Amino acid sequence: MTQGKVRVGVDLGGTKVAIGAVTGGGVLVAQETFSTDAKSGFDGIVARIAERVRALCQEIGGSEQSVDFVGVAAAGQIEQETGVVRFAPNLGWTDAPLGPRLSELLGIRVVVDNDVRAATVGEYLFGLPAPTRSFYNVYVGTGVGSGFIADGRLLRGHSNSACEIGHHSIRYDGPRCTCGNYGCLELYASGTGLARRAREAVQANKNTRLWTLAGGDLERIDSHIVSQAAKENDALALSLIRETGQILGIALSNIVNLFNPEVLMIGGGLIGLGDEFVMEAHKSFRDTGLKWAVEHTRFEVSRLGVKASIIGASFLGMLDPLGRIVV
Amino acid sequence: MTQGKVRVGVDLGGTKVAIGAVTGGGVLVAQETFSTDAKSGFDGIVARIAERVRALCQEIGGSEQSVDFVGVAAAGQIEQETGVVRFAPNLGWTDAPLGPRLSELLGIRVVVDNDVRAATVGEYLFGLPAPTRSFYNVYVGTGVGSGFIADGRLLRGHSNSACEIGHHSIRYDGPRCTCGNYGCLELYASGTGLARRAREAVQANKNTRLWTLAGGDLERIDSHIVSQAAKENDALALSLIRETGQILGIALSNIVNLFNPEVLMIGGGLIGLGDEFVMEAHKSFRDTGLKWAVEHTRFEVSRLGVKASIIGASFLGMLDPLGRIVV
Repeated sequence: MTQGKVRVGVDLGGTKVAIGAVTGGGVLVAQETFSTDAKSGFDGIVARIAERVRALCQEIGGSEQSVDFVGVAAAGQIEQETGVVRFAPNLGWTDAPLGPRLSELLGIRVVVDNDVRAATVGEYLFGLPAPTRSFYNVYVGTGVGSGFIADGRLLRGHSNSACEIGHHSIRYDGPRCTCGNYGCLELYASGTGLARRAREAVQANKNTRLWTLAGGDLERIDSHIVSQAAKENDALALSLIRETGQILGIALSNIVNLFNPEVLMIGGGLIGLGDEFVMEAHKSFRDTGLKWAVEHTRFEVSRLGVKASIIGASFLGMLDPLGRIVV
Repeated sequence: MTQGKVRVGVDLGGTKVAIGAVTGGGVLVAQETFSTDAKSGFDGIVARIAERVRALCQEIGGSEQSVDFVGVAAAGQIEQETGVVRFAPNLGWTDAPLGPRLSELLGIRVVVDNDVRAATVGEYLFGLPAPTRSFYNVYVGTGVGSGFIADGRLLRGHSNSACEIGHHSIRYDGPRCTCGNYGCLELYASGTGLARRAREAVQANKNTRLWTLAGGDLERIDSHIVSQAAKENDALALSLIRETGQILGIALSNIVNLFNPEVLMIGGGLIGLGDEFVMEAHKSFRDTGLKWAVEHTRFEVSRLGVKASIIGASFLGMLDPLGRIVV
């Protein structure tokens, strides 16, 4: 093994899987990405992950026996104690024994947790300019997820589902979400939320750049097209992005008023909408959060980006049952 | 002292002060309530509390020297480390050195914290039918406050302002709250929120029982008048109460989706609106919270009631700087 003890992390998403070898200092020294190929089903996906993890271990000069555990970050509801994926809509899985099966194939311990939670561990350990006693990480991508670490302990919650920020309501009389709640954050400030609002705006007035960029197909309007139109200075796209930032800022105030962290971080694909989005979110957060809490909060934007969940996953085995991070 | 070591707790509110002697088993053995008389100012209020605490200690057969500390629960923003009340609008205090001054007068240690937080400690230790690893307590009175204890540790937050549930937005485009946020929970599901919505309804249509009960004075409509009208089966009052329960239920879902506690408790004056209110809140919570979290949550209604903050206050000195409860 190169560079002392190397850890292995897996980030399992609905469209692709990223695996990486990470040093004890949190540096990603080897990485590989391949298609999830969700159609191949549970057995196919797990077999492919095992094969690639073995290959990665050889590539870095060891074997799967020389790592203590493999950490897997998966998008979905995880039963952390057993490694069973209770519900992962983008993989089409219900009660899938991901941890046990992968462990059987590799002959080593496998630890599974939610992807945003893994990213939170990664950011907490290696993404901050200075250590902190309390850290809240918000990931804004297709959906919105989050994680909270206070006094060196990850908040898992009683049934391992704490920090489901995407399904906290920010409009009690808003539209019903698939989760059963009304006006969930995810319906507004997420990739899908932005796309939904953009489609609504275009439906009301088709004489827009968004309509042209989507080739006249309403369904093709997504956050990427909004982003592209904004780069061309399209007024509607810019206003949609600013509004998304404002709404996210209010959700961030909710988090700071409820958790009162020292550091509040935002990351995820929507950060790619640019400075205008991030600055608007920050401004709205500062304007709406309780003064006493906001003044004591450091606002950070993720520097690790997509690497955070692989790095965090590779450290998941260092958490004890209470969520304490023992590094 | 009777019954071994007796503790003293003070619940300091804007209109009245309640002090009590509490046994190590959490039983309130003596209690006294007197008017806060906010007009007498900081010095007057603190002197009166000191005098009554001394009298209470004598009444239970000891002196103020025989208690280890006095715990004070105060409505407002507390700097917990120093016992300074940073901001207490209903007392008219800013940066008031409540802890240090009272300690000086009594010659013993004084510990100050937020009243709802103290109540949360009281409920956690003595208000539950069975112990729990994670407990979220929501107090719905004139305003709305809350507290969270996980793995024996009270969440204080980085600047001691965690769990400000009353100022989490449940309508991002709602009316602006005095705190600076939009559509705060307190504007809807609280004593003042219910009164505000009742006044709006009466303003739109004066031909109501509420208008009569208020003697034709819109400003006199408060949650008590709504409660009275509901007892007389007034349809408007009942519908306002049900709606308040529904909105509270969505806020409870937000809490359970974010904190995923094992036990979720509601208490406070608005519980007095009756079963209809509590059942509606419970139903709305079950309908809107994430299934996986809700199924693992026990819903409780406070049994300790107003006693919770005195009892909890009397145990505040048992918390270490990290919020761990060392009983």
